[in-house]
Amino acid sequence: MGRIVQKFGGSSVADAESIKRVAKRIVATKQAGNEVVIVISAMGDTTDDLMDLALRVSPQPEPRELDMLLTTGERQSAALLAMALSDLGVRAKSYTGSQAGVITTGTHGNARIIDITPGRIVSSLDDGDIVIVAGFQGVSQTTKDITTLGRGASDTTAVALAAALGADFCEIYTDVDGVFTADPRIVPGARRIPAISYEEMLEMAACGAKILHLRCVEYARRENVPVHVRSSFSDKPGTWVKDLSPVEQGAAVEQALISGVAHDRSEAKVTVVAVPDHPGEAAAIFDVIARADINIDMIVQNVSRGAEGRTDISFTLPSADARKAIEALRAEQDRIGFADLLFDDQVGKVSIIGVGMRSHPGVTASFFNALAAADVNIDMISTSEIRISVVVDEADVDRAVQAAHTAFGLDADGEAVVYAGTGR
Amino acid sequence: MGRIVQKFGGSSVADAESIKRVAKRIVATKQAGNEVVIVISAMGDTTDDLMDLALRVSPQPEPRELDMLLTTGERQSAALLAMALSDLGVRAKSYTGSQAGVITTGTHGNARIIDITPGRIVSSLDDGDIVIVAGFQGVSQTTKDITTLGRGASDTTAVALAAALGADFCEIYTDVDGVFTADPRIVPGARRIPAISYEEMLEMAACGAKILHLRCVEYARRENVPVHVRSSFSDKPGTWVKDLSPVEQGAAVEQALISGVAHDRSEAKVTVVAVPDHPGEAAAIFDVIARADINIDMIVQNVSRGAEGRTDISFTLPSADARKAIEALRAEQDRIGFADLLFDDQVGKVSIIGVGMRSHPGVTASFFNALAAADVNIDMISTSEIRISVVVDEADVDRAVQAAHTAFGLDADGEAVVYAGTGR
Repeated sequence: MGRIVQKFGGSSVADAESIKRVAKRIVATKQAGNEVVIVISAMGDTTDDLMDLALRVSPQPEPRELDMLLTTGERQSAALLAMALSDLGVRAKSYTGSQAGVITTGTHGNARIIDITPGRIVSSLDDGDIVIVAGFQGVSQTTKDITTLGRGASDTTAVALAAALGADFCEIYTDVDGVFTADPRIVPGARRIPAISYEEMLEMAACGAKILHLRCVEYARRENVPVHVRSSFSDKPGTWVKDLSPVEQGAAVEQALISGVAHDRSEAKVTVVAVPDHPGEAAAIFDVIARADINIDMIVQNVSRGAEGRTDISFTLPSADARKAIEALRAEQDRIGFADLLFDDQVGKVSIIGVGMRSHPGVTASFFNALAAADVNIDMISTSEIRISVVVDEADVDRAVQAAHTAFGLDADGEAVVYAGTGR
Repeated sequence: MGRIVQKFGGSSVADAESIKRVAKRIVATKQAGNEVVIVISAMGDTTDDLMDLALRVSPQPEPRELDMLLTTGERQSAALLAMALSDLGVRAKSYTGSQAGVITTGTHGNARIIDITPGRIVSSLDDGDIVIVAGFQGVSQTTKDITTLGRGASDTTAVALAAALGADFCEIYTDVDGVFTADPRIVPGARRIPAISYEEMLEMAACGAKILHLRCVEYARRENVPVHVRSSFSDKPGTWVKDLSPVEQGAAVEQALISGVAHDRSEAKVTVVAVPDHPGEAAAIFDVIARADINIDMIVQNVSRGAEGRTDISFTLPSADARKAIEALRAEQDRIGFADLLFDDQVGKVSIIGVGMRSHPGVTASFFNALAAADVNIDMISTSEIRISVVVDEADVDRAVQAAHTAFGLDADGEAVVYAGTGR
């Protein structure tokens, strides 16, 4: 007998029929002798519809009130799922994030979980209930107001609950079969990854693989919660995200040098032109960006040009934040003393990720050779211990992903081509 | 500077435009120097739509979960109204029933308010906020689960909050101009009642006047909260429900013997035929009804017929409960020993209400003569100190209401015709 947390997304509970189908699946888990906690998203497009309604009432909805509004979506699906479960003859109770003890910071729209106090959930489990928790929401530790964790954060709720409840593992049910070596829409030969380490999954999520939310993976790694990402439309096993044993690690490395290729089209590139090249200038620029509450991703600074001692600094950031960043920098142009700002949102980021590159030199060379052979020009580069990312023209993204996938032997029945070389 | 509670119903907040319109009205009250607490219903048909969704998931939705589901409607409108108010440059915060301290019994779907602990609301008012409370809902004192107060009970939330906050008065905004001497759809000459006592309003509500919920009026009377029922579509004064001063009372009595004529088509009549006429038989019948959790309204027992010492007992009850009552009685037919059950839902109740009848004899005679002149046959009769009700054929209801309204001088420019007589 185990204790399992299962999370179902909005597409799994899009209508009354889907809710009843999911209920049957949950009952099977319960009847196999497990204690079951369900985390549920809002039905289908509910959150978008509520957001539209809010925008019809107010062009810039008050964040506290937007949280009060949007959290009703998950409460509705939680209540409906509990009704469907009761109809199948099992005990089930729904709880709001607040009732479930999801304590958060007070940042409306993007709160972080501080603590879980699962007293009511534990007693409900002790009573034999299937417990259903409304995802995506909590209650502010200081103001006691209702908060949301940011979009897609029901996954994080599930993992945090699994950790707080000492669950055996957390299952994330979604509309795909698991984590793939690349987006199958771009690479038809992409394969499901049976198991992947937290670190690799973190890099995948940070590099645009949308299957798991970054915070969710961070939480799972910190609390060491095994996460099983799988399809709610089939019984097939999905992808386990967990601490890989040395044997598993070794098996993975033998199979392929890298675990997957991720891409992200949601970023834009800003170039600050002709910045005076003396100490403190880069800091001044990124201070302005930080004060505008914008996260940036990659940064590249060219060597100084000419006698004036001026340089260009480029960085990438989410396209949605680009206007805010440019306005903030324009306002400080005189003080910082740069000449111009260039903006390009026709860019994409392609990343290869794998713990294997730690011990295998030549991965960088192989990657860049594969891109060159595919006639893809590299605009910016950044690396971590287990990842290499390049920014390329948006039109080249698909070709770059396919080339990397093939070069590292990830295609079904493919074979890695690693160039000899020293270091990366 | 006063403290005012205002309640807006679902038709006042049916869409984004209505919400913005209501917001302007509320700001005016605030800017006149008042502390303002708003109680809000769900938008338009939201509650019905959620109920439909629940029934698509489960034929008999779990009551606890139905409360979790339905209460999201008021939370949504509360949040949206707070956004609209913020846009107008005033501070506004929405609260759920639970956050507002509405403590109830645990009867899901029909809970009663036990207590209000308005700590958060009072601090919010102290901060200068307009406070918005989601109506119709509270939190169970024992289980801490979310409860609902029964349909239409946002009025009760408003009055209870007004009492707990020591508000000067409570305004109920609705889609009509106030309480009328009769339903204007039946009696075109019906007039708005400027002021009415709690007792009369209680009888009106109990007799089918739908403008205020019975529990709401009970609460207002017990806590002595003046209630102003008025239209959200105009600035005209409505009807004040309050303790009338002797002068007001006298003025009302001079104007008319009765304050209004109410009618109700939602009841049905059950007749238990040939009940053995000995002590305890009536008790046995109404024990069965009470155990089925059904409220009955009027009861009539005929004199015994014939040598067998048997009698008929008729009673009225909400049509919706009739099947349950008949099934419960059928199950006990042998034990109680009655011969048959008759059922009639083609009945209506017409009531005249007025504190004036306390001091004026002849009101009953006038009423019955007016009905006779209108060719209306009386089926059952019941009276209180300030009310006379008759059950008539449903087809005769309109004619009976018109006849009574005219006879007691309630028509615009009408004059009371009171027959001389002793007692009623």
